[in-house]
Amino acid sequence: MQSNKVKPERPGGFIDFLPADYLARKKMLETIEGVFFSFGFDPIETPIIEFTKILSGETSETGKNIFHVTGSEADESLSLRFDQTVPFARLLASNPYNAKKRKGIRLPWRRMAVGPVFRKETPQSGRYRQFYQFDADIAGTTSMMADAEILAMMYRTFEALGISKFVIRLNNRKILNGLTDLVGIKERETVSKNDITQEMMRILDKLDKIGLDGVEALLQETPVNDFDPKPNLSPEDVQKISRFLAIQGGNTEKIAQCKELFNDIQQAAEGLAELEEILSCLEAMNIPEEYVSVDFSIARGLDYYTGPVMETSLSDAPEFGSVFSGGRYNDLVSRFTGNELPAVGASVGVDRLFAALDHLDLIDREKSTVTDVLVLRLEAGQDKAYIEMADQLRRAGKNAEVSMLDDVTFKGQFNYAISRNPHYMIICGEDEFKKNTVQVKNLRTREQVEVDQPELVNYFK
Amino acid sequence: MQSNKVKPERPGGFIDFLPADYLARKKMLETIEGVFFSFGFDPIETPIIEFTKILSGETSETGKNIFHVTGSEADESLSLRFDQTVPFARLLASNPYNAKKRKGIRLPWRRMAVGPVFRKETPQSGRYRQFYQFDADIAGTTSMMADAEILAMMYRTFEALGISKFVIRLNNRKILNGLTDLVGIKERETVSKNDITQEMMRILDKLDKIGLDGVEALLQETPVNDFDPKPNLSPEDVQKISRFLAIQGGNTEKIAQCKELFNDIQQAAEGLAELEEILSCLEAMNIPEEYVSVDFSIARGLDYYTGPVMETSLSDAPEFGSVFSGGRYNDLVSRFTGNELPAVGASVGVDRLFAALDHLDLIDREKSTVTDVLVLRLEAGQDKAYIEMADQLRRAGKNAEVSMLDDVTFKGQFNYAISRNPHYMIICGEDEFKKNTVQVKNLRTREQVEVDQPELVNYFK
Repeated sequence: MQSNKVKPERPGGFIDFLPADYLARKKMLETIEGVFFSFGFDPIETPIIEFTKILSGETSETGKNIFHVTGSEADESLSLRFDQTVPFARLLASNPYNAKKRKGIRLPWRRMAVGPVFRKETPQSGRYRQFYQFDADIAGTTSMMADAEILAMMYRTFEALGISKFVIRLNNRKILNGLTDLVGIKERETVSKNDITQEMMRILDKLDKIGLDGVEALLQETPVNDFDPKPNLSPEDVQKISRFLAIQGGNTEKIAQCKELFNDIQQAAEGLAELEEILSCLEAMNIPEEYVSVDFSIARGLDYYTGPVMETSLSDAPEFGSVFSGGRYNDLVSRFTGNELPAVGASVGVDRLFAALDHLDLIDREKSTVTDVLVLRLEAGQDKAYIEMADQLRRAGKNAEVSMLDDVTFKGQFNYAISRNPHYMIICGEDEFKKNTVQVKNLRTREQVEVDQPELVNYFK
Repeated sequence: MQSNKVKPERPGGFIDFLPADYLARKKMLETIEGVFFSFGFDPIETPIIEFTKILSGETSETGKNIFHVTGSEADESLSLRFDQTVPFARLLASNPYNAKKRKGIRLPWRRMAVGPVFRKETPQSGRYRQFYQFDADIAGTTSMMADAEILAMMYRTFEALGISKFVIRLNNRKILNGLTDLVGIKERETVSKNDITQEMMRILDKLDKIGLDGVEALLQETPVNDFDPKPNLSPEDVQKISRFLAIQGGNTEKIAQCKELFNDIQQAAEGLAELEEILSCLEAMNIPEEYVSVDFSIARGLDYYTGPVMETSLSDAPEFGSVFSGGRYNDLVSRFTGNELPAVGASVGVDRLFAALDHLDLIDREKSTVTDVLVLRLEAGQDKAYIEMADQLRRAGKNAEVSMLDDVTFKGQFNYAISRNPHYMIICGEDEFKKNTVQVKNLRTREQVEVDQPELVNYFK
């Protein structure tokens, strides 16, 4: 054995949760679940493995990050889900509502899902390769009420988690698409309009890193060959973009400035009207204005978004990026059915949020065990008496554990109890057995009381 | 789009849980968790993906059923876990306790884990390829108290689930290993003792299918070549095995008969003494005797078991096989550390149990939504009033949903409400808006009351 030992290591980007972490994270997940339930999102669960064809319709960006699984049969192409939105679209497509049979999914429908998703990152990058997402989506309505409810739920989630320093940033893809019309991007013989648009968005996304001058320079660069999607904008068009990027102020002000800039561009006007509708719904739901900020630079990575998009950063931990993001995606189901199905949703990056809160010292690891009462093992030969006590304590509704440490000295057992960190311990040695009593020690208050053995259950009841 | 439609299908052996199923299964999982917690099992979570070398040390039987994952880097060999016991052993090996730093895992330790595991079955076989296991293990003690606590926890789990018709079957690998000595199996020049033993176990496992005559015939067959592991027993040895298989009666009786048969064979005597110790612990914990039955034919598939083994079948649904199984495995950690670490545990086959209970009509799907109150959308232009009502209801602690159905007729909204199946619906149309009231209809009792709008929260509080 010795010579063939396997190193007990874990691949990079994967996490082990020991009890203190698990219990703190469980509390966080239950809090989120409570808020999602309060908005009427019904829980579902789809498998972790899907056919590759289901997942691979998306952008090359996510496509290349998909883990593939060697299937059971040669012709099976299976993969691990990279999010829960695409499997949700698959589920919607395969469960159309049948009014006669009352079977299938009746729309509009709110559903939530929580579970691990997988991204094939390079392990060195320090990114998670498995992480939990907690998703909520509303499918089957174009009403901006739905988008507003998603945003309200995001706000209420942070509120329930006791987080007050955060900003939900809100934009609309239609406004970004309107930019294309604003600067008059046209398709070229060898490059599609879409590719040029995407390239322009990529450049705008660099604003934080390279500044306005850098962005302006890149926007004007000449394509190096016929297939280069560089936007190659005129100085006048670059000016318009700079004006767009310079928009500032409160939500109302920003929307007004943007309206003026886009003037009669249909798409942008629609997008702005949607934002106004959402903001007035949020007011009706008593969401404080300062927590939802219109920000025209937000795009979201996944290209399935078609309308409002949102993301949330923690004000004191912006380096963790967005911890709760989403948007409207009206076309995702049409890949399967040929018909559009409007939907909007958002998802918590659970493990990223957990790490960010941990960084901010907001994770409480006080509870490191579920055990309420630990029964010490102080007398060899009394094992049966000890497990009987544990059984009694369980009947009294307590989580009870019998120490199984071989060292039956008081010191050994006491040290073990301290490391286990229960609320109470039961001390029953030679003396107590003679008197038919036990000592109950409260490890929080350090109080110790002697209780008659037959009264143990009543003491805890 | 139309021409490139992707079929929204799910690979065989994977399950979608829609809300009614999800909620019923969630209730089951929470019940199991409650019992596991009451025994002091602390929850952990390990990743779904492990290095292949961690998982592949096991039997070829499980080895061939492992799903492999294409890693992020060429030299990475990753796989999906097929159970949670091997990752538990990896975790134990990589977190040794450091008393000074108070870091690592202090033994003895009880841990539980719940989550999906994966088996690469052929999809046609109708077996699950992803299913949940709910595990509880005690590591770091050789005391039979631990094995008894696992059995007691199994009993209490069924009790908590409201299942009364089940039998936990208990055996000890040491007794089965003793059989080898009883019939004097010796290694041959070209076949190891272990291979012959395994072959003998496989034959004994066929008892239910081919009967005693069939088993006796197979045990005596002559090997077809030098590498054939057939046991090739003498008629006298076959007689001993037949006597072993014929053992019957209550637990005490069976153990007495077995003792007599094995006489002075050390391993078997040890195994029988362990069973006696376990049974007396179970008595101390008030576990009714009839639910734990000594059965010398139980072996369990995985070959990491080294002592007591147990499995549970539902008396009214035996065709579902064992729904809660486990055993003692003292060598699993030594693959990583070179040192034995005694451990015992059991795991619920959650999805198999769910399917079996469903088959027995014991799954309650009454609750198909988390929504308590659905606010109907009866007046175009009053959306903001409706979402404000929902916000109020949520503050009153109710799970509330606003209908987003476009059809604002009463009939349309009512039908939608029925399909959503909430406890209450709020009716507020033109009349109610004028009077500043709402109608609250209880869909369970069919009662309807008119409430002043400002009193809505108090009504539900």
